Amino acid sequence: MTDWLAVDWGTSHLRVWAMTQSGTVQTRRGNDAGMGTLSRDGFEPALLDLAGDLLGTGKTPVIVCGMAGSRQGWAEAKYVAAPCTPPGIDRATHVPTREPRLSVHILPGVKQTNPADVMRGEETQIAGFLALNPKFDGVICLPGTHTKWVHISAGEIVSFRTFMTGEMFALLSQQSVLRHTASGDGWDATAFADAISTAMSNTSDLAARLFSIRAEGLLNNLHADQARTRLSGLLIGAELAAARPYWLGQHVALIGDDKLCKAYADALGAQGLPVERTDAERMTLEGLKAAYAALRETTQ
Amino acid sequence: MTDWLAVDWGTSHLRVWAMTQSGTVQTRRGNDAGMGTLSRDGFEPALLDLAGDLLGTGKTPVIVCGMAGSRQGWAEAKYVAAPCTPPGIDRATHVPTREPRLSVHILPGVKQTNPADVMRGEETQIAGFLALNPKFDGVICLPGTHTKWVHISAGEIVSFRTFMTGEMFALLSQQSVLRHTASGDGWDATAFADAISTAMSNTSDLAARLFSIRAEGLLNNLHADQARTRLSGLLIGAELAAARPYWLGQHVALIGDDKLCKAYADALGAQGLPVERTDAERMTLEGLKAAYAALRETTQ
Repeated sequence: MTDWLAVDWGTSHLRVWAMTQSGTVQTRRGNDAGMGTLSRDGFEPALLDLAGDLLGTGKTPVIVCGMAGSRQGWAEAKYVAAPCTPPGIDRATHVPTREPRLSVHILPGVKQTNPADVMRGEETQIAGFLALNPKFDGVICLPGTHTKWVHISAGEIVSFRTFMTGEMFALLSQQSVLRHTASGDGWDATAFADAISTAMSNTSDLAARLFSIRAEGLLNNLHADQARTRLSGLLIGAELAAARPYWLGQHVALIGDDKLCKAYADALGAQGLPVERTDAERMTLEGLKAAYAALRETTQ
Repeated sequence: MTDWLAVDWGTSHLRVWAMTQSGTVQTRRGNDAGMGTLSRDGFEPALLDLAGDLLGTGKTPVIVCGMAGSRQGWAEAKYVAAPCTPPGIDRATHVPTREPRLSVHILPGVKQTNPADVMRGEETQIAGFLALNPKFDGVICLPGTHTKWVHISAGEIVSFRTFMTGEMFALLSQQSVLRHTASGDGWDATAFADAISTAMSNTSDLAARLFSIRAEGLLNNLHADQARTRLSGLLIGAELAAARPYWLGQHVALIGDDKLCKAYADALGAQGLPVERTDAERMTLEGLKAAYAALRETTQ
């Protein structure tokens, strides 16, 4: 029997886990009904479409994290200001629904004033990581479209910084002139290490080094895999150089896509920094479970 | 009467000028039949479509610069290696045509081995600039999709470097998450100067500063014009920092779009550097005219 639904609702995807009270996953489902494809009225039907058959006759709590809580989402769950603990159920927005069996709570994101920055979704993964590692003190890096570096101390998000590295890689590799050259889908570990080292040693001429990839394709028949890997390495290397104050001498944990985390782990490893890798989906789910546990406490 | 055709054939546009022997423009035409839209067989029909009615009964020389000479173009006009004078008619590729009244010559681009770099089209603008300023010694900057910085000495292209600044601005402002924030079309001179200064003083965290534009839009209602101008300033500032070895203490001439050249002139002016602005289309035409004059000499 489904006691509650855990929901990760991002810009481009919707993921639902049917959960028991004790935290066992009964079913996992997902589709591409992301926030970006929905108007405000579309969220409840989209959720019922994917998971309506999992509801019983009584009221089912639904705990949601991610972009569904943005201003353009289902209902705004206003950012909590860092420094703060990852916001839990007490800061969630309760959303009225037409379907009486739903009781929807959307967890808020976290904002930072100076430098201006925001996260939405990552705070729940951080909550999950801290639920499993309550004494963690160090830095969590969440590689992705908008990679986050987050300084954690005494259970709090102290400060963070977002880099558009992943989105720049996607745009440059798929839509810029580099798409002709960086069209491979393989990975060249040596090219990556070289590019990381180049980018970290001098961060100033990124835009020129990027064009050199195209020129080397034209003049030296640079292999498509090498080109794509170099593009990735130049962008990640520039990020690591800028994020040095975050990771230098720190205990670093990575949360994100496996392949991407491997690339970050390799790059940081080459700097002599051991990192801890985690299961990103598990962190999301642990964060949602922590929120559900707190909800049960307040309603019992 | 049309004595010859001057043709600037880029990736996205085709421009033709009907010329007299003495260099007077009789007609100017253009359309969007750029190299990117054509297969090899499509170039001759596209040229005749736009300018076929301008041909007389005899053979008409056609001097072409730009991407029509690339490997994917009408016929490959192989790069000449820098250091070199801007390649003229003696390095052009003669293209056979079905239409007997055409005699087509495509001017080559210029390549550089280390760092790998290429240009195609800009070399003809440089030739035009040098035809008008034969004693110029200094640096020519050609802002655009792929901005070029070119060191000129004794009439030669000594070295050059290409920055993907313009293409990154287009992708980030129109297709990234920043499109929601940087949607203005106005210009904020103060925001631009601030962003240039920020980017030039520390070039390392560009990808984070870019995301801050989005965050300031969400948290501080950053105005769309300011956001767009800041994006431009951060990218151009990072380029100017990297190109400093090119422009520092040099005589700099700008060739390119008026608005964009104004932005570069403002940014370099704030660094205490006076720059010379030119008419880009005139430089192209002067370069093509110089090639035609050389053609007449060789055939007389």
